[in-house]
Amino acid sequence: MITSNQNPRLKLARSLLGRAKERRAENAFVAEGVRLVEEALRAGWPFRFVLTAENLSDRGKALVDHLQKHGVAVEQVSSDLLNSISETETSQGILAVLDQSTQPIPDTLSCILILDQIRDPGNLGTLLRTAAGAGIQAIFLPPETADAFAPKVVRAGMGAHFRLPIHVLAWETIREICERANLTILLADMEGRSYWEIDLRSPLALIVGGEADGASQQARSLAHDRISIPMPGGGESLNAAVAGAILLFEVVRQRTSSFQK
Amino acid sequence: MITSNQNPRLKLARSLLGRAKERRAENAFVAEGVRLVEEALRAGWPFRFVLTAENLSDRGKALVDHLQKHGVAVEQVSSDLLNSISETETSQGILAVLDQSTQPIPDTLSCILILDQIRDPGNLGTLLRTAAGAGIQAIFLPPETADAFAPKVVRAGMGAHFRLPIHVLAWETIREICERANLTILLADMEGRSYWEIDLRSPLALIVGGEADGASQQARSLAHDRISIPMPGGGESLNAAVAGAILLFEVVRQRTSSFQK
Repeated sequence: MITSNQNPRLKLARSLLGRAKERRAENAFVAEGVRLVEEALRAGWPFRFVLTAENLSDRGKALVDHLQKHGVAVEQVSSDLLNSISETETSQGILAVLDQSTQPIPDTLSCILILDQIRDPGNLGTLLRTAAGAGIQAIFLPPETADAFAPKVVRAGMGAHFRLPIHVLAWETIREICERANLTILLADMEGRSYWEIDLRSPLALIVGGEADGASQQARSLAHDRISIPMPGGGESLNAAVAGAILLFEVVRQRTSSFQK
Repeated sequence: MITSNQNPRLKLARSLLGRAKERRAENAFVAEGVRLVEEALRAGWPFRFVLTAENLSDRGKALVDHLQKHGVAVEQVSSDLLNSISETETSQGILAVLDQSTQPIPDTLSCILILDQIRDPGNLGTLLRTAAGAGIQAIFLPPETADAFAPKVVRAGMGAHFRLPIHVLAWETIREICERANLTILLADMEGRSYWEIDLRSPLALIVGGEADGASQQARSLAHDRISIPMPGGGESLNAAVAGAILLFEVVRQRTSSFQK
């Protein structure tokens, strides 16, 4: 049982819960809580190790058995020590240190999401969760967007990280991939045609920009067209995660229902 | 200039930024930041007083001029003192103490939103902001839902509080209002018909439940039908604010576009 806050595994977990720089240098991240660790195991994700404390629930204990059967190193830590590094208010007594493994981009693309300058971790995680639910094939993150493996993003993502290919890419690479796959690139914007007036059934890339600064110059120059969400009630804008969700599920609707324009 | 943390106005603002009980007892709440105070003034909202600090921007100073022209009491506080009670990380140097005035429920209802057991203040505020943008006529909050006038809800609401009638109502009263207005009551649920298969053009009430516990027994017994969001990508559920947004904007789409079922 780890009781020293200088233990190397504890120190690694703590630094990965901190700055993006550390996560990139180590090419690793942390998933906290029973549900997220279950999802990682179910997805066959590469584990480095798991830390657990004595306050683990029965479901958590069953998970630890499964992890050990799969050859994952599980180490006990005192609850106080685990709580001291935990990002959550009350630690569920389990966290996993995982590789930042990246699932490949599918060969044939029909819908991908580009998140441009999304800085709020809760919004970023919610967008990943929504995209996973909508069956989007991949997420492209330009360098200006927040780190998708930050603890708050992972928590809000609710397992999306283990189900979606998430790629940090330069704008030039994003352009090349979209051109090769012949995707129509649509930018979510306050101006533009209403989303229900645009046929979203052919292969497309949707760009959703951050709230503070809107879309970047690169996003504007990449986009073929703009798509907007009319707001009959007025107001300046919608939350970025909300706008993304409305557009992603319009893609689902048009492709699933017997859509007639 | 207020320099004592025992000043009565400062103490009132601090207690209103705290517990819901204090806000209810005083029938007041706090809006922080230049944009929110601008929105309150534009809406003609009843102000009690405004506190400002020296770090106010030019836009903030112009706002103070407007407030004073409208007869609002504006008092200076030291920046340190205002920061010490502020809910935001960096105070913009202005906060308003406002009445919890309630706009009346419109006589003729065509779309209202019932938020059932929404506990997360960010989600609640985002739902209010989205509903205001969608032009929903009123929000009904059963007693189990979080306080809509909590500082985090007000901030995430981005001015929705000044544009939407928000009413805390017992379920029995909600039932009476819906029956009188002849509303079809739809419960957002994992089971149910896909949202695009339901005609949302006739007068309706939409119930969105909290993520943790789903819909309450009262919500289930009130609802005429269930409406669901199919998730081709799988996953357990969507964030409550995201699910609400998709359904509210489907109402907008069906009522605005030349909808054909």
